[in-house]
Amino acid sequence: MFQPVRGMRDLEPTEMKKRQYFWDKVRNVYESYGFERLETPAVESFELFAAKGGAGEEIKREIYYFKDQGDRELGLRFDMTVPTARYVASNASLTKPFKRYCYGQVWRYDRPQAGRYREFTQCDIDVFGPSTAEADFEIFAAATQAFLALGFKEFAMRVNNKKLLAGMMDAAGIPEAKRLDAFRAIDKQDKIGWEGVEKELATRGVPNPEALLKMIQDNKITKEIAESPAGAEGKKEIDAFLSLAKAAGLDKYVRVDLSLVRGLEYYTGITYEVMAGGKWSCGGGGRYDAMVELFGGQPTPAVGLSFGVDRVIQLMDEAGLFPELPSTRVLVAAAKDEVRLECIRIAASLRAAGVATETDLAGRNLRKQFDYCNAKKIPFCIIVGPKEIKESSFTLRDMASGKETKLALAELPAALGKP
Amino acid sequence: MFQPVRGMRDLEPTEMKKRQYFWDKVRNVYESYGFERLETPAVESFELFAAKGGAGEEIKREIYYFKDQGDRELGLRFDMTVPTARYVASNASLTKPFKRYCYGQVWRYDRPQAGRYREFTQCDIDVFGPSTAEADFEIFAAATQAFLALGFKEFAMRVNNKKLLAGMMDAAGIPEAKRLDAFRAIDKQDKIGWEGVEKELATRGVPNPEALLKMIQDNKITKEIAESPAGAEGKKEIDAFLSLAKAAGLDKYVRVDLSLVRGLEYYTGITYEVMAGGKWSCGGGGRYDAMVELFGGQPTPAVGLSFGVDRVIQLMDEAGLFPELPSTRVLVAAAKDEVRLECIRIAASLRAAGVATETDLAGRNLRKQFDYCNAKKIPFCIIVGPKEIKESSFTLRDMASGKETKLALAELPAALGKP
Repeated sequence: MFQPVRGMRDLEPTEMKKRQYFWDKVRNVYESYGFERLETPAVESFELFAAKGGAGEEIKREIYYFKDQGDRELGLRFDMTVPTARYVASNASLTKPFKRYCYGQVWRYDRPQAGRYREFTQCDIDVFGPSTAEADFEIFAAATQAFLALGFKEFAMRVNNKKLLAGMMDAAGIPEAKRLDAFRAIDKQDKIGWEGVEKELATRGVPNPEALLKMIQDNKITKEIAESPAGAEGKKEIDAFLSLAKAAGLDKYVRVDLSLVRGLEYYTGITYEVMAGGKWSCGGGGRYDAMVELFGGQPTPAVGLSFGVDRVIQLMDEAGLFPELPSTRVLVAAAKDEVRLECIRIAASLRAAGVATETDLAGRNLRKQFDYCNAKKIPFCIIVGPKEIKESSFTLRDMASGKETKLALAELPAALGKP
Repeated sequence: MFQPVRGMRDLEPTEMKKRQYFWDKVRNVYESYGFERLETPAVESFELFAAKGGAGEEIKREIYYFKDQGDRELGLRFDMTVPTARYVASNASLTKPFKRYCYGQVWRYDRPQAGRYREFTQCDIDVFGPSTAEADFEIFAAATQAFLALGFKEFAMRVNNKKLLAGMMDAAGIPEAKRLDAFRAIDKQDKIGWEGVEKELATRGVPNPEALLKMIQDNKITKEIAESPAGAEGKKEIDAFLSLAKAAGLDKYVRVDLSLVRGLEYYTGITYEVMAGGKWSCGGGGRYDAMVELFGGQPTPAVGLSFGVDRVIQLMDEAGLFPELPSTRVLVAAAKDEVRLECIRIAASLRAAGVATETDLAGRNLRKQFDYCNAKKIPFCIIVGPKEIKESSFTLRDMASGKETKLALAELPAALGKP
């Protein structure tokens, strides 16, 4: 017997219905902002992936890396930002702002764990071109509206800015050479707590850790931060972002959080982390103004945000946000074999009226057709026999209650909930 | 500069809108029949692929084959039938009939040609469980309704049955050992013509080629064919299929075609080929009753059909079947920087009313905001300045005609075509 490969899984119909519901809601919001979908291949050249991290060989261990028969070094995409930046870099004549969304699978050769797979789904929204607070705000606003459209009540976006982080480093007198160490320690706060971070900062030889920690824990943009060159820019950016959020009535969903550290070598300005259903992170992003140029394109500022779809679905499940999802409404059941052609005709007319309808495909008797309805949770059955056809009157059976009603063909769609 | 890897391509927004239109139509039809979506991983074990063809090493040259870091032999899926049969085989308790549809990318290491890519899109519909004419018919009917929903006028399904092909071989006295050769020759008819087929049959040492060719070209189920054991079953199956098609008024879309040869080692009964927009094949399928058992499952008859989405999109383009596809309806343009917050508020209210709306993200002057509208073919602009805000009256500009109208905020959605 064959199974899905280690770390991957089949998404069964009940799961796919949830994803379809999720995706219809989200794309509807993204399209209302004028974002358009781009789809890039699953396979990219390894050279592209290596260019991003600057890490070359190291990244091979984290992705599905392989050579094709033409000896090309390839890899499965590990996100959709890198391929999109590649697309923007090599299409210089694109109208800017280029506003794109996407939805698709990505692959990472991680250690599989509960709820963590080697193939998973992301859905992204990005703006290429402007380096404005308006662009930063639009990414936040569209993602927030998407979460509200999904029905989330407890929802917030943690927001920080890489320049404010640099401003704190300036204010605490931490030299360039030690800043990456400091960021890495702060980034572990969720796992090791503030005491752990303090120890880690000391171990890594970061000077003046108390001053840095105090600034982060106070979570205030102090005079010292605001007066450093990077910090001044960061404050200006975040203030402009906050005025826009306020004007749009969305500031209640923003949590400025100076402890947020994401994508160390990657982000250059604002950073976001999506917190839904309480403490869980289920997405994030930020401004990455250097990537398109790194891939050989014209300097092109960019800002975006990605949802971890699998995690959002799980949170929606836990919060009971899915309505009853569409499936077959009725089975047109044949009481005798001689009426099977008539069942197909009745089913066709119900489908034309917008009712999801099945007929028996397995030559089963009426009892077994009922069993199929029950197994598949099909709520109604229409019973068709020679007498029913002769009298043009059919029995509609409610499978849960067993209640039966006699109806003419034309009355069936309304009785099944379609006008 | 990085490009997509050889044989693959980016699907740009205009292309993705067409695919979205296609897919919304098709899934709507498939769901009206009670089919449900299943999504399997892109990566499968190589062992699974090798089991299908029985061809082992040979298939490595036709797919993306690789090993992961755990030394597992893997491959990218080359279709979605094999992974689905794997799913059915290893989930014995699935309610039958199991009716699933799917949509996704598949990968083949083919020689890239115009319009032929190494990554392409398929969309499938399959029924697992019954081996009935009703199941054969439902696949045909749902696919036909999907093509009609897409707006195709010139549409037909070529239909044959592997058992009729066997019956012809019986009738022509062609021994088992030569039948695969004979099938392969017939399958080339499109490319080499009937004369070419005759030569090929002779070269391959197939006895009695004239008799075989005559039967195929006459395209009639003769007494000789119908009286052979396989042919008798084939005729019974195709007759039952045709009565159902007739009862449903869909027989005008059926072309019984004894020259149709598909999936030589694969199909066991009915076979389909989708012909749209004239001569082009843009999909096909058939009954494959042996596959689930081959993958270690319980014997489970199966029948299905797959569209080549890229080709269907191309045919729809050529036939002009796409309506105007949704994109941004209006840009709320700022005449002065001081009104940008107000533009964001107006945009939010338009989006809430269902109008796809953009604001300027790039701090551009009014002239350049108009240029953006023109470049992106956004049909309307709302011009907002301090005076407009004071008077609560905004200028709606039709970008094509240049015509301008003064309207109150509440009047804008209706003027933009939304109630």
